[in-house]
Parts: sequence; structure tokens; C-alpha cells
Amino acid sequence: MPTDPSCLFCKIVAGQIPCHKVAENEHALAFLDIGPLSRGHTLVIPKGHWVTLEQVPGDVAAGVGSLIPRVAKAVVEATGVKDWNLLQNNGKPAHQVVMHVHFHIIPKPNEKEGLGIGWPAGKLGQDEATALLMKIRASMD
Amino acid sequence: MPTDPSCLFCKIVAGQIPCHKVAENEHALAFLDIGPLSRGHTLVIPKGHWVTLEQVPGDVAAGVGSLIPRVAKAVVEATGVKDWNLLQNNGKPAHQVVMHVHFHIIPKPNEKEGLGIGWPAGKLGQDEATALLMKIRASMD
Repeated sequence: MPTDPSCLFCKIVAGQIPCHKVAENEHALAFLDIGPLSRGHTLVIPKGHWVTLEQVPGDVAAGVGSLIPRVAKAVVEATGVKDWNLLQNNGKPAHQVVMHVHFHIIPKPNEKEGLGIGWPAGKLGQDEATALLMKIRASMD
Repeated sequence: MPTDPSCLFCKIVAGQIPCHKVAENEHALAFLDIGPLSRGHTLVIPKGHWVTLEQVPGDVAAGVGSLIPRVAKAVVEATGVKDWNLLQNNGKPAHQVVMHVHFHIIPKPNEKEGLGIGWPAGKLGQDEATALLMKIRASMD
């Protein structure tokens, strides 16, 4: 399991820094965010150190993926807030702050609290779609 | 596998409505979003019908979770945009539009394109953390 001794979240995984632990499995750890956007804001991280999600191996991603709904269900029940967002940021320009993959489970109790979302949608043209698909498919492992 | 005959994404899974398919595995399907926030905006969905993520069984969530990094890696390579966001919305107040679980892979090429994020962070007090943890842990399966 890759680890970075200077990484805040690796220190949490190693028990060198405390956290408000919610749950864990073989591959993933869930704990409360100390700067919550709303009550119940929880982070789910892989125990190994990867900076961005596209670097995470399939078995680890599966382990993290399976923990997220279990934790979210408990957060929904505990907070009584049924609406929520899952957000995972890759790279500083995409608002990533800690450089260790983490998923935010963020309850959305009302318009002001929770995640704010800006949605500048465009349209996908047929030619663009075809060209883009060819490139993406060619890049799939 | 649960399905809803009136659901747009179930129709896509069933092949009744076409999509720009990127990839799939046993549990999940990835295709281009037709209202992209940026070039390469891709959706990853479970093939079965669940409205919100906390309802998704562990094995399906693992399958979806393992496909996401593979697709994201290909999107990063194909677009040349290394920064990106993963977003998954649960409930209309949390901006969910299609009522079938879907993860957005959204490249962030610059400040204007891609996902806009509002981050009204608070602070987590020790007493609040302890009370909340007890409730969430008690709700874990």
C-alpha cells in the first residue's frame, strides 16, 4: 500500500493523527470532516496514498465504492437529511486541498447549507461526440 | 436487477435509447453526458435502477466504483485535462435531475468551464462531533 509520510490523511490512516472515525473496511476509512459544509459532512478515503482518483487501482476503488453507500445511508439516517451530494476533487484547479484521494459525503439540508453547485451546461454535438468517443475509448485500458 | 421502464437511464441500459457509450462492466455503464459542463463530461451509472446512492448494494457499488477511475483516466488522457471533479447528486434539492443514480466525471479545463463549486465551510466542535458520531455509528449496518 503506497503511503506518504508527509500526508495528513496517511497520518490519520496510520493513527498518528486522531480522527472522528465513522467506519472502515479493508481498503477505505470514513471520518467526519472538521470543516463541514453541513452537519454530517463525512470523508471517505482509500487507506493507501494516491493523489487523484484515476490513479487508484480497481480493487481499492471497489472497496472505497462499496463503503460509500453504507456510510451515506447511516449519515442520512443519523441527520434526518435525505438529500446529499458526493463530491471528489482531482487537482488544485478542481478545488482539491488535501493531496490524497477523498470523497465528500455532504448532506444538503437546505439551499444555504451543504454543497453549492454551479452548472454551466453546454450541448454535445454529434461530430464532437464521435471524435471524443474515439479518443476516450482508445485511452481505455 | 431492479429496473424502471419509465426511467431514461434504464432505457439506455436496455438499448432502447442510444447513448455515446464509453465503457461498461458487469454492474456499470459509462457514456457521454449530452449536456456537458466541459468537453469529456461523462456519466457512470449502475445498470440496475436505484434512485439514490445509499440504496445501492455493496457489490454493485464496488462495480461502479472500480469503473470510475478507469473511465476517468481515459477521459484525462483523451482531453489532455488533468484536473476534474466527480459529482453524484441525491435528491432534487441536491440538484439530482434524472432519478437513477449517476456519477458525473467532469473535466476542469479552466475557471469558467466544468463544475462550479460553492464551499460554505463551518467548523466541527468536539461535543457536536461526539454526538454525531454516536448517531451515525448506530445507524451503520
